[in-house]
Amino acid sequence: MELGLVGLGRMGGNMAERLLERGHRIVGYARSAANRKHLSDLGGEAAASLEDLVAALHPPRAVWVMVPAGAATEEVINTLAGLLTPGDTIVDGGNSNYRDSLRRAAALAERQLHFVDAGTSGGIWGLQEGYCLMVGGPQEAVARLEPVFRDLAPEGGYLHVGPTGAGHFVKMVHNGIEYGLLQAYGEGFEILKESRFNLDLGAIARLWLHGSVVRSWLLELLSDVYESNPDLQGIAGYVEDSGEGRWTVAEALEENVPAPVITLSLLARLASRQPESYSAKVIAALRHEFGGHAIKGE
Amino acid sequence: MELGLVGLGRMGGNMAERLLERGHRIVGYARSAANRKHLSDLGGEAAASLEDLVAALHPPRAVWVMVPAGAATEEVINTLAGLLTPGDTIVDGGNSNYRDSLRRAAALAERQLHFVDAGTSGGIWGLQEGYCLMVGGPQEAVARLEPVFRDLAPEGGYLHVGPTGAGHFVKMVHNGIEYGLLQAYGEGFEILKESRFNLDLGAIARLWLHGSVVRSWLLELLSDVYESNPDLQGIAGYVEDSGEGRWTVAEALEENVPAPVITLSLLARLASRQPESYSAKVIAALRHEFGGHAIKGE
Amino acid sequence: MELGLVGLGRMGGNMAERLLERGHRIVGYARSAANRKHLSDLGGEAAASLEDLVAALHPPRAVWVMVPAGAATEEVINTLAGLLTPGDTIVDGGNSNYRDSLRRAAALAERQLHFVDAGTSGGIWGLQEGYCLMVGGPQEAVARLEPVFRDLAPEGGYLHVGPTGAGHFVKMVHNGIEYGLLQAYGEGFEILKESRFNLDLGAIARLWLHGSVVRSWLLELLSDVYESNPDLQGIAGYVEDSGEGRWTVAEALEENVPAPVITLSLLARLASRQPESYSAKVIAALRHEFGGHAIKGE
Amino acid sequence: MELGLVGLGRMGGNMAERLLERGHRIVGYARSAANRKHLSDLGGEAAASLEDLVAALHPPRAVWVMVPAGAATEEVINTLAGLLTPGDTIVDGGNSNYRDSLRRAAALAERQLHFVDAGTSGGIWGLQEGYCLMVGGPQEAVARLEPVFRDLAPEGGYLHVGPTGAGHFVKMVHNGIEYGLLQAYGEGFEILKESRFNLDLGAIARLWLHGSVVRSWLLELLSDVYESNPDLQGIAGYVEDSGEGRWTVAEALEENVPAPVITLSLLARLASRQPESYSAKVIAALRHEFGGHAIKGE
Repeated sequence: MELGLVGLGRMGGNMAERLLERGHRIVGYARSAANRKHLSDLGGEAAASLEDLVAALHPPRAVWVMVPAGAATEEVINTLAGLLTPGDTIVDGGNSNYRDSLRRAAALAERQLHFVDAGTSGGIWGLQEGYCLMVGGPQEAVARLEPVFRDLAPEGGYLHVGPTGAGHFVKMVHNGIEYGLLQAYGEGFEILKESRFNLDLGAIARLWLHGSVVRSWLLELLSDVYESNPDLQGIAGYVEDSGEGRWTVAEALEENVPAPVITLSLLARLASRQPESYSAKVIAALRHEFGGHAIKGE
Repeated sequence: MELGLVGLGRMGGNMAERLLERGHRIVGYARSAANRKHLSDLGGEAAASLEDLVAALHPPRAVWVMVPAGAATEEVINTLAGLLTPGDTIVDGGNSNYRDSLRRAAALAERQLHFVDAGTSGGIWGLQEGYCLMVGGPQEAVARLEPVFRDLAPEGGYLHVGPTGAGHFVKMVHNGIEYGLLQAYGEGFEILKESRFNLDLGAIARLWLHGSVVRSWLLELLSDVYESNPDLQGIAGYVEDSGEGRWTVAEALEENVPAPVITLSLLARLASRQPESYSAKVIAALRHEFGGHAIKGE
Repeated sequence: MELGLVGLGRMGGNMAERLLERGHRIVGYARSAANRKHLSDLGGEAAASLEDLVAALHPPRAVWVMVPAGAATEEVINTLAGLLTPGDTIVDGGNSNYRDSLRRAAALAERQLHFVDAGTSGGIWGLQEGYCLMVGGPQEAVARLEPVFRDLAPEGGYLHVGPTGAGHFVKMVHNGIEYGLLQAYGEGFEILKESRFNLDLGAIARLWLHGSVVRSWLLELLSDVYESNPDLQGIAGYVEDSGEGRWTVAEALEENVPAPVITLSLLARLASRQPESYSAKVIAALRHEFGGHAIKGE
Repeated sequence: MELGLVGLGRMGGNMAERLLERGHRIVGYARSAANRKHLSDLGGEAAASLEDLVAALHPPRAVWVMVPAGAATEEVINTLAGLLTPGDTIVDGGNSNYRDSLRRAAALAERQLHFVDAGTSGGIWGLQEGYCLMVGGPQEAVARLEPVFRDLAPEGGYLHVGPTGAGHFVKMVHNGIEYGLLQAYGEGFEILKESRFNLDLGAIARLWLHGSVVRSWLLELLSDVYESNPDLQGIAGYVEDSGEGRWTVAEALEENVPAPVITLSLLARLASRQPESYSAKVIAALRHEFGGHAIKGE
């Protein structure tokens, strides 16, 4: 089918490629000329602006937005809202907060525009392995986009999980779980590394892929990481977070669900980014004050 | 090759079957007559006692012990130590604490008996999918047992990870990671369940197997669980722990490694087994005392 | 000085009493006739409505709002906003979210009304021991209310901590710390209780008040609790939370501050209110699925 | 009464001074000549060796050991065991693990020596404020030492909490609680510090001492710290742990008590001592591998 695609970066570019390979017509726009050029090279049509992109599509149009969550997504959707015509659909494939999606869907509905939130997992491997798609939105709008969803996803990797917002909600929790899994592996390999046994971490990661209870796709990647970089050289112990983890924690609290592992995984990331803990300074000062314990100078 | 096998339960029985299918001679012993009978039915040789088992094997013997960690393993190994002859090898395939393995290896060495610790993962699926084997011990003893290791494991699923104790150490950490993974999935699915979206948890588990970042073998099993029992009926929120989790926590502390997620996963299990938290009683009483906050009566 | 006081419950009633004892003129309003009657009995003036309360005060008026945070506070402040005249001041002494206070102050400023946020600690003991007051707001408005602040607080127990919102922010963090302190004591006494030593918890709480590092006001109260109710009879292990704890967690995340202890204290409260953990059900089901581990039936 | 005192450092020296002031005869020994000299200056009798110390006391002797827990305590007790005579008593006032105390008491009993474990809190403030003493041991041995306990402790600050080991157990939990309290304050003040309000942390610490729910002795000290060093200059965010915290965590696990706050307080200390988290390196590497997320170079 025909799809407009806004955002042709790491994720959007690969998605365009996957869809083009499967015979879809892709009209794409990105601010980066290089990314637009890349789309043309792949056989897609690069639009010079959002206006041109909209003009190049036949109503009822479908435009997939694949730009960073937050301000960038907000701006693109607002601009598109002014260009599209009743009956058109905007798909947000980014990691938007589902509450934003609920709000945007309501605003777009006033213009008789449809909104579909398509949580997208798979990272840079999606091009070859397919993207796992968690889709929220009204039945009709989702159904019309099925050809795209089915070709982006691997077999079984697409589901209409619920009404508007449900797609981004499920993707958010997916990422929350991912935080926990990553932290569990991280801790485990740190314990292995610090052991008395001088273990070969990469060999163990590889071993566990075969028949063990902890085998997973993330462990496959970790095995690859160790194969190419056994000492993790050049990789600082500094972990960013892109929003979904803290939203998961906030939603868990909202639901009164205690989720200690997902929560502590987020906190470990925060701590990884602190050169020094002020809490620890307070405690060091207090221990000196009450017990005369030695203080390590800065 | 020829192998003695002590313990023919859920794990040992399946291992015997897998080895028999691959042409090994298995002489087995178990306290349960039914389990011994089952071995005979599979084509193995059931010994009536440990003495008989030892007598039925040709030196240098290899006896695999697959009984519950702790007292049962201790007793079997001690008995075997008195029956075996110099050059024989005992393999402990259970979830023993690696410190016990170090101790046992030293004691057996005084009798010129070899000891190999073979951490074994795979659970009840090992029969068909193979067991992941993390093996510790001296090179020579391990090498002699390779035919057995290779046939128990799937391709790539066996590794000699290090000297005595290393096998059980690696298996311990494996299980610690498993605690964290399980808790991460548990929390995630609880957050999904409590959401406003009335989500189909089983369908989401199944979906995530296809192209998502969180796909794993445990998630496959969870998908199966939901398929057969969508409401988890008849399953109490009560989780046992069998030792490796708390040992992992203890070792992490010993190494000064902060492992919050593995640790909190263990604590969540402890909490699941408490009908009521005494800490919470203390806090409820205090909140009433200082703030006049209402108390919920028991 | 002269003060209007809205809300004459556990907190407000005691504050009126403390201020009346110190010679202030208190005009109070509460929805409960009994609470209004109580104010009259104490020597205060009970107004029949907010209109009457405002009418009974001389401009520039000061009205202290001491009702539950959230909807009740919102409603009272909105109503007062329509009754007061430029130059008047509203004090919110409740546990409002400081973001609400920032919003309310801005809205009131448009009507030339002042807003002061006065975080108030001390609970039901404030009447006799004085309230600790953490006050935020513009210098002038705060200064005018100093006579009231000084008489509500014990010596040293009042501070103008910063601009609008700062009072409620500091009170919020105060309560977050309180969560952590309570949980630390709760856990400690649970560990004592479960020990092999059959310890007298009340005697230990009392003991620690004298010279130990952990002595505190909360421990004094705990000692009193044990004295009157050694077995905590009739007190369920069920702990409510009234907002400040989760706001503290949210603010910590907003600031990228890892605060594991305050966070876990909140999560322990959530867990105390769950009859059963769904996460634990998921894990129990999975352990059965992969390891054949026994399940406890519901 | 008459007391031998081994260890005249920060704790032992002050205890000697406090007891001398109250009329006891103190015969002390320390390896440091300066510390022995200091005892003489205070009016005590400095022995040149443990042999001399024992010789200078009248049977039935009482010798208080106040040296670092672990090897030092073990060595002193073992040496004393060979010097003392039946009916004599050794008091261990240090932070020994209660399991060591149980073992030592049993070994000393074979020589008809008594053992008393006296958990001692108060730090460097004990000299002036008195020490809180948590005493375990047989009734008779404890009773004989009461004059010393009563003079070391402030009014109400001494208790015979139970049989051998109970004193050190209670002290251990005391310190576990202390970990949690310290971490709660540390986190709270970090959240205050990072707020938008440019708060005066020292003034807030001081304020909270007056009427607030979180007032405590530790908060008094924190207020003093801020007064003398508002920016915590020269204090690294690096916190040691001296054993009791990790023992508390181990005991909680042994008792199946989930103690997340005390546990995480310990983990925060471990993390404070890591220049970089290896777990975080693993996660950063994995995020790059699956999502192409940027890595911060080392």
